[in-house]
Amino acid sequence: MRHWHGSDHSGEDHVATDRRKAILEGAARLIARRGVRGLRMEELAAEAGVSTALIYYYFKDRAGTLRHTLEFISDRAERYTSDEDFTADPHDARHELEQSLLLEFQDTPEVRENSTAWGELRASAIFEPDLRGDLAGATLTWIHEVAALLGRISPTAAAPALTASAERLTGLLEGLSTRWLSGALPLPHAHRLVREAVSVEIRHLDRQEDA
Amino acid sequence: MRHWHGSDHSGEDHVATDRRKAILEGAARLIARRGVRGLRMEELAAEAGVSTALIYYYFKDRAGTLRHTLEFISDRAERYTSDEDFTADPHDARHELEQSLLLEFQDTPEVRENSTAWGELRASAIFEPDLRGDLAGATLTWIHEVAALLGRISPTAAAPALTASAERLTGLLEGLSTRWLSGALPLPHAHRLVREAVSVEIRHLDRQEDA
Repeated sequence: MRHWHGSDHSGEDHVATDRRKAILEGAARLIARRGVRGLRMEELAAEAGVSTALIYYYFKDRAGTLRHTLEFISDRAERYTSDEDFTADPHDARHELEQSLLLEFQDTPEVRENSTAWGELRASAIFEPDLRGDLAGATLTWIHEVAALLGRISPTAAAPALTASAERLTGLLEGLSTRWLSGALPLPHAHRLVREAVSVEIRHLDRQEDA
Repeated sequence: MRHWHGSDHSGEDHVATDRRKAILEGAARLIARRGVRGLRMEELAAEAGVSTALIYYYFKDRAGTLRHTLEFISDRAERYTSDEDFTADPHDARHELEQSLLLEFQDTPEVRENSTAWGELRASAIFEPDLRGDLAGATLTWIHEVAALLGRISPTAAAPALTASAERLTGLLEGLSTRWLSGALPLPHAHRLVREAVSVEIRHLDRQEDA
């Protein structure tokens, strides 16, 4: 999901890359633990084992740090929701879509931390206008990825119908994710609801084609 | 939505009722403005024009205050998502269901504040285990209300299928609500996605009956 890049750091040396990564990992951990509004730069520096000056050097300010953390979390989610290789076969597109959505719910510390931090960034965009543009961009990228997979499954469905189905599937994922993380929705039941949602939307798109 | 009561205050006099209400209105306002984790009892006392002692007298502690605020917000949402009277006609059940879901998205200060506070309480249940039981209870009540309306629309659908559809519709609402409040989803488009989701789930339930 949400594969999208705001910047390119290919020219950096390894030490810089490691330090940047330590800061972003620390930020994701702190956000997952206490939320975006509890994130203080001094605390992040201590968590990452760097100076606050270095954080400002890399990310300019708190808003820049949050934006890069969003990108970092998005990349990590992209990694754990990508299954093995798939061919262009429509059946595989369906499997790929289901897997990419189901893999958002995994009972591992990494996925729980990442989903918690992502949900927290999403919820705080209401309060932190600086985050909104990047968050909306990441969400849109995710919607387009899901719409593209739906398009491979229902090749003659119209683009707006594909996008609307993708908006519903990703919106549902976000709603269920909060329920799962707060203990209100058991993992197997979340999976069942998502799998059915995929079926229901695909049947809807196939009906549109007949109409 | 989410009509549910943890307590009964019918024996109280008017002054006490007004003060309780002022505290809960203040709590909803502060949570919508800065989030659950920013809520301090001293600040709430100042906002409501009462002493902190009175807040503790009525609601025992911070957790009790949050729980009663959740109930208060839930009651307010119940009010603005209930349309006029409806009969037991299945067509009306569909209209009632659509309206109750669509009325969660309204561009008025009251609904925005209430939805923001509700979303914030939902998101913070991940970090505040004290809130989880009440939040899960409120969510379950809402799911059952939606499932009951779906049951009037598709009378022969099985109970687990009705509940699963209701879980998806309410989960979708929660996901889309955050997008709407952070400015990523325009109101008319939110309405369109919800209306289609209702159609899609009803067709799904009707297909189940045929199977």
